[in-house]
Amino acid sequence: MSKAVVLLSGGLDSATVMALVGSEGYEIYALSFDYGQRHRVEIESARKLAQSYGALHVVVPLPSVSFQGSSLTTKELSVPKREKLGEGIPNTYVPARNTVFLSFALGFGETVGAFDIFIGANSIDYSGYPDCRYEYLTAYEQMANLALKETVEGRAKVKIHAPLLSLTKAEIVALGLSLGVDYSITHSCYDPDEEGRACARCDSCAIRLRAFAENNVVDPAPYRY
Amino acid sequence: MSKAVVLLSGGLDSATVMALVGSEGYEIYALSFDYGQRHRVEIESARKLAQSYGALHVVVPLPSVSFQGSSLTTKELSVPKREKLGEGIPNTYVPARNTVFLSFALGFGETVGAFDIFIGANSIDYSGYPDCRYEYLTAYEQMANLALKETVEGRAKVKIHAPLLSLTKAEIVALGLSLGVDYSITHSCYDPDEEGRACARCDSCAIRLRAFAENNVVDPAPYRY
Repeated sequence: MSKAVVLLSGGLDSATVMALVGSEGYEIYALSFDYGQRHRVEIESARKLAQSYGALHVVVPLPSVSFQGSSLTTKELSVPKREKLGEGIPNTYVPARNTVFLSFALGFGETVGAFDIFIGANSIDYSGYPDCRYEYLTAYEQMANLALKETVEGRAKVKIHAPLLSLTKAEIVALGLSLGVDYSITHSCYDPDEEGRACARCDSCAIRLRAFAENNVVDPAPYRY
Repeated sequence: MSKAVVLLSGGLDSATVMALVGSEGYEIYALSFDYGQRHRVEIESARKLAQSYGALHVVVPLPSVSFQGSSLTTKELSVPKREKLGEGIPNTYVPARNTVFLSFALGFGETVGAFDIFIGANSIDYSGYPDCRYEYLTAYEQMANLALKETVEGRAKVKIHAPLLSLTKAEIVALGLSLGVDYSITHSCYDPDEEGRACARCDSCAIRLRAFAENNVVDPAPYRY
């Protein structure tokens, strides 16, 4: 059985990726990161998702020093509301986030013998993050294959899989629904309340709600409309 | 004043890089990593070095999950002694170590506005690590420039500096001595005793001792010969 590392945030995209990877019969190693994000409730979603797909789940506590200056990790910045959608890279951008996440996946993957790394990056209907683009992911893969003992000695090849990259958010939801994803346990909101309910107003909520609406399905996740 | 991030292990190479960066007038942000390495005493060396060059020093505690299967982090594997020198990639190899370190430097660097990243990687007289080669570092730099908001929007350019890459270990020691590096506070041994004294027998000690001998200088670091 082939092994895969799945970057599992607990959100809509990574839940859909988990379902895809599960349907392809991989032995799954799921990685989640606790990096001081406001929406840490997503880690609990990740835990439930990993369990439902029989994945080995590791939560990596990252020191907050690496991820400062983002509204996702700093109380002084407020998460932008939907009127700002589409105006360049928003302040929810976290410096080098996917680079750090993929690098842990790379090291952990080599340790367990998994070189297929899955990430829910998505360049359509996205928030404008540079590390969610095809050019970036391709460059990462090239670098990765020069970095590891197993690849340099010719026994393995790292493949960064981003199966959602060119799907619209509505297409992702449609795919997930066809794979039976339980979206009620996923979490996407950047600014949840203390009970973990989504705000329905941040970029992430706005994009998600529109995608469900386009599928004529009510989003089953909890909101504080 | 330009800002630089220096990956500072506390060893001979990174101490020499610190001296070089200091001589070039950068404002220095030094990053060290606590990843469960046996030779954690090197972090204390890093602290002293950072202080002596007026650098802001951050020690990043990394979860050990990322770095398993190496003799540097696992008690079950023994550090190879010098008779093995030069036979391929040794078991002191740590999966994706420089990739993880550089990725933290990238995120931290963008946060503080530092895009010149210095690493003491060295491809001559080295231990055969794939992530210490020119091809790898070049690929990393290309990826990095596609990853960050500041670079993608054209306000900065990431440069991965590896000034020791094509120097022999003896040339590195000569350079450091000319820059006044206090090598007595550096630590290179993979297998120190409880007092932090170097073993004089592991790859790292063997390479270091030979380099000092070639400079006709006695290595001032403490050994348990």
